Amino acid sequence: MSSAPVIILVEPQMGENIGAAARAMLNFGLTDLRLVKPRDGWPNERAVAMASKADKVLDGVRVFETTADAIADLQTVYATTARGRDAIKKILTPNAAAAELREAANTRVATGILFGKESVGLSINDVTLADSIISVPLNPDFSSINLAQAVLLVGYEWFQTADDTPPSWILNEERPATKEELGHLLARIERELNNHGYFDPIPTRKNVILRNMRSMFHRLGLVESDVRAFQGIIKGLSMTPKDKNNDDNNP
Amino acid sequence: MSSAPVIILVEPQMGENIGAAARAMLNFGLTDLRLVKPRDGWPNERAVAMASKADKVLDGVRVFETTADAIADLQTVYATTARGRDAIKKILTPNAAAAELREAANTRVATGILFGKESVGLSINDVTLADSIISVPLNPDFSSINLAQAVLLVGYEWFQTADDTPPSWILNEERPATKEELGHLLARIERELNNHGYFDPIPTRKNVILRNMRSMFHRLGLVESDVRAFQGIIKGLSMTPKDKNNDDNNP
Repeated sequence: MSSAPVIILVEPQMGENIGAAARAMLNFGLTDLRLVKPRDGWPNERAVAMASKADKVLDGVRVFETTADAIADLQTVYATTARGRDAIKKILTPNAAAAELREAANTRVATGILFGKESVGLSINDVTLADSIISVPLNPDFSSINLAQAVLLVGYEWFQTADDTPPSWILNEERPATKEELGHLLARIERELNNHGYFDPIPTRKNVILRNMRSMFHRLGLVESDVRAFQGIIKGLSMTPKDKNNDDNNP
Repeated sequence: MSSAPVIILVEPQMGENIGAAARAMLNFGLTDLRLVKPRDGWPNERAVAMASKADKVLDGVRVFETTADAIADLQTVYATTARGRDAIKKILTPNAAAAELREAANTRVATGILFGKESVGLSINDVTLADSIISVPLNPDFSSINLAQAVLLVGYEWFQTADDTPPSWILNEERPATKEELGHLLARIERELNNHGYFDPIPTRKNVILRNMRSMFHRLGLVESDVRAFQGIIKGLSMTPKDKNNDDNNP
């Protein structure tokens, strides 16, 4: 038996949300989905349509008559709810709960997370059955979150606790250009601008212009192929135009 | 003008996803939604139905002919894509991107995030227009994430960068029971068990049983009202049963 958390939807109303929840679960490696008295019965065609090939999750769904039945084999249970209740419970962010869920999985403790029906969420009786509460920090002016999206956020945080993706990395990374390569490029730009008489009307500003240009190129973080791209641009622009009349379009 | 990131859906196909994205945005305080050539035109009744009262976002939607038009006023743009491309780009997790987006907002840099169409995601030409890429770490065996759910995750991470919810806290927190209160409770339990002759058949085990019981009660982290609840239970169980015949049901 897997020690990843079980997702329990209590009296879900819309098949679409069950399907979307199944898809969100599988996106983050969760596969054990249980339903307590789904409004439209089970199986549900709308759930299949929305699950977008998360068949593995839907095929394994188990349906229960009561929340107590659905969590009978579990050892630690979380209730997701936005509202404060009068019970004394620990409330966790999805992030903090995920850390606990991973710790439980590592020690083979069977965990589950309860999600209430779309219209009113979990009943107070269902919340009472849980060890702790998970509450998603939300815009206080619009805190009604879709059922499947709540499942998604918990799954996302769960997955991240064991994911080693670096915060950022460079796709197709190349080595940065050397200062010599940048120096050659800058020298070529200066030479071609001189050849084309660019500085002739403004000889006193030439040094300032070149200094700013140099500063910019050393700041841009160009890689090897970027320098080659610029060399190509400089070369191309320095060629004699095929049609002199087009020259006016090249500022 | 707000400096929160703009969400740009490029050629979205299903109105439902536009509506769900709008709702997810507002859940996390994002309100500027732009569409590039939505397949079914705009406005879209299915979007309204799914937005679940996120009217504020839908009412402000702007529609553009090209991605370049949609991001013209922005200064830093992220492309969300799962696939590696041949461009050289920094790739960030939603969490790392959110930190950059918040930093940009704090310095009044206008940012936006591109999301591609449901079927194939962003085109390579759209990715080219972005400064960096956001990639959600997903189950490699099921990495097809719903459009609105991708929007949700980015919004969730954005919101968290400015959210001060503690990782966990206690709802309706009460003061923990004192050791004296626990001592009185344990003494009462021992007294009533003696009164009822519970230890008579097992006098040699009495000390072990009491020690284990004591250890348990000191471990449970009971609060003040928990002790009162137990005092009530002990009191009730110690009373003479209303009907002696029922006694067999009280093990």
